[in-house]
Amino acid sequence: MTKIVLSTNHKSEMIEITEIVKEEVIKSGVTNGSCIVYSPHTTTGVLLFENVDPSLQRDFLAHMSRLVPKSDRYAHGENADAHLKSALTGNSIAIPVVDAKLMLGEWQGIFFCEYDGPRANRELFIKVING
Amino acid sequence: MTKIVLSTNHKSEMIEITEIVKEEVIKSGVTNGSCIVYSPHTTTGVLLFENVDPSLQRDFLAHMSRLVPKSDRYAHGENADAHLKSALTGNSIAIPVVDAKLMLGEWQGIFFCEYDGPRANRELFIKVING
Amino acid sequence: MTKIVLSTNHKSEMIEITEIVKEEVIKSGVTNGSCIVYSPHTTTGVLLFENVDPSLQRDFLAHMSRLVPKSDRYAHGENADAHLKSALTGNSIAIPVVDAKLMLGEWQGIFFCEYDGPRANRELFIKVING
Repeated sequence: MTKIVLSTNHKSEMIEITEIVKEEVIKSGVTNGSCIVYSPHTTTGVLLFENVDPSLQRDFLAHMSRLVPKSDRYAHGENADAHLKSALTGNSIAIPVVDAKLMLGEWQGIFFCEYDGPRANRELFIKVING
Repeated sequence: MTKIVLSTNHKSEMIEITEIVKEEVIKSGVTNGSCIVYSPHTTTGVLLFENVDPSLQRDFLAHMSRLVPKSDRYAHGENADAHLKSALTGNSIAIPVVDAKLMLGEWQGIFFCEYDGPRANRELFIKVING
Repeated sequence: MTKIVLSTNHKSEMIEITEIVKEEVIKSGVTNGSCIVYSPHTTTGVLLFENVDPSLQRDFLAHMSRLVPKSDRYAHGENADAHLKSALTGNSIAIPVVDAKLMLGEWQGIFFCEYDGPRANRELFIKVING
């Protein structure tokens, strides 16, 4: 397993990590199996999402804030919205690996979602499973 | 890994793929491990959902359209709603395999969700992992 | 694979299952691979979530009821809201295992979400994959 450290620059942000994950698949030496991309945080997300038009990323983050407003109705004072966005997004995805390649679609990228930034030391785990 | 091609008939639609996935698990020869069901598209979803009462599928699709309306507030003009629904649904699930059987529950089916159809060539990847 | 039986006490409820899953990883004898935590039900969820402040769990359940109200607009009469919450939460997560340890973050716990309780016999499948 590889641990990657990311720093984030905004309260909410999507960082594309597709190339980092592809590289780890090659380094792992696994030719057939699956790749788990995992965030160990509770105010983040890991997401498969369109990676061509950046305005879609702004649409996603803005819409998450409509679905989970930063209001004062929560019992947990500080950053409850970030925890709820994280729960709705999910923090683990499994992607098939065939012939040492991630089987991503043509417009599909892998994104790390920050919901409570900026943070200097966000971690991301990449585990390639043989099988 | 097997690639399945599906064609969809509506803008939004749920297609049950449980039997297709079961068959691929048997063909794989894997008796213990996990099965990854994966969509390589950015306007689709892969979902575990009740497969007895079809009215629940209509409820799900209608509710997704309430949560993510087809409005003009998005920066990405065309089909932003479909991308956001896809992000909320997810496009990858892992299901345990024991004794060459998918460990689905009694009322649980596997569904491919179309959010931007109709499309003639939607792909679905089924990867069975030994372990 | 291990099958765990849980009983739930409320209509909506989050039950932390982190310790149960950790134990199963150790029992499995797998030192490197991944652990799939899977619910075979259609009115439940499996979720990575903050496990220190219990008020966040109340915030999550209350917010899910705002996103998916128990209204009469659904075609499926009885418990459509529980099915839709289940679909949004997801019922399967994969967690990396390294040196026989689940790679959870510092504040990250694993939770079983009940959306249609109370129920005496909820099942949870824990499958540890070598690789």
